[in-house]
Amino acid sequence: MNPKQMTFPDPTDTEAAFYAAFRRLDIGQMEDVWLDSAKASCVHPGGGLLLGIDAVLASWGEIFRDSQPPQVEYRLIQTSTDAVLAVHTVEEIVSSGSGERRARVLASNVYRLVDGSWRMLAHHASLPLVEPHARKHQKPLH
Amino acid sequence: MNPKQMTFPDPTDTEAAFYAAFRRLDIGQMEDVWLDSAKASCVHPGGGLLLGIDAVLASWGEIFRDSQPPQVEYRLIQTSTDAVLAVHTVEEIVSSGSGERRARVLASNVYRLVDGSWRMLAHHASLPLVEPHARKHQKPLH
Repeated sequence: MNPKQMTFPDPTDTEAAFYAAFRRLDIGQMEDVWLDSAKASCVHPGGGLLLGIDAVLASWGEIFRDSQPPQVEYRLIQTSTDAVLAVHTVEEIVSSGSGERRARVLASNVYRLVDGSWRMLAHHASLPLVEPHARKHQKPLH
Repeated sequence: MNPKQMTFPDPTDTEAAFYAAFRRLDIGQMEDVWLDSAKASCVHPGGGLLLGIDAVLASWGEIFRDSQPPQVEYRLIQTSTDAVLAVHTVEEIVSSGSGERRARVLASNVYRLVDGSWRMLAHHASLPLVEPHARKHQKPLH
């Protein structure tokens, strides 16, 4: 892993850089955003658990490869912050570069303060398959 | 909301009580586990965001109603802990009471220390739809 180029004084800075890296398919900046740690973890929508920075960055490299830059918007729903740990709940709206697919994604983003900069420690994203009002008429497993 | 009955000196205690409440369909204990807060949030597998303790507990009430006690196992994959905030990554194996359905679920559980007890602040669960090795052969949106 290369030395970190950017410093993020607040978790919202890290989050902005994360979505900018996604939007630009910029794997270098994505590497900057993430904490260089075996504890880094990522769950893409519908995906399994990716554990450790190497697996996490490899997955983003795979997503970025041969892609058209997607449209990515996000809305911060709420935050919980402690001295060196922060958790954000975010709604993402992601459209593929071709514009064919558009998804509303829910994400839990976890940040850790290390050496004066907040880095992403975990990203857990999921795709709501069922509208809340429709859930009343069926029995979810959990 | 009733006064809290139980005290959880460690986030792992809260987590054990959360899964025990799920296993026993015990809404009273589930209420004890959760932080009584407008910031409490829950995402069930495939579900939308539930925000605020009332919406969160109502969803669990709905899941528990007329259900057979499910089999719920869980495995703590990793933890990140700060003074008053903790994030756990957990793998759950949930089987419906009838045994018809069995799901492997990934969850991010967030806990907050308030008045000497750790309470659940957020639960974000998702169902991996694609095996990691299968993802190499398709282009995920994200």
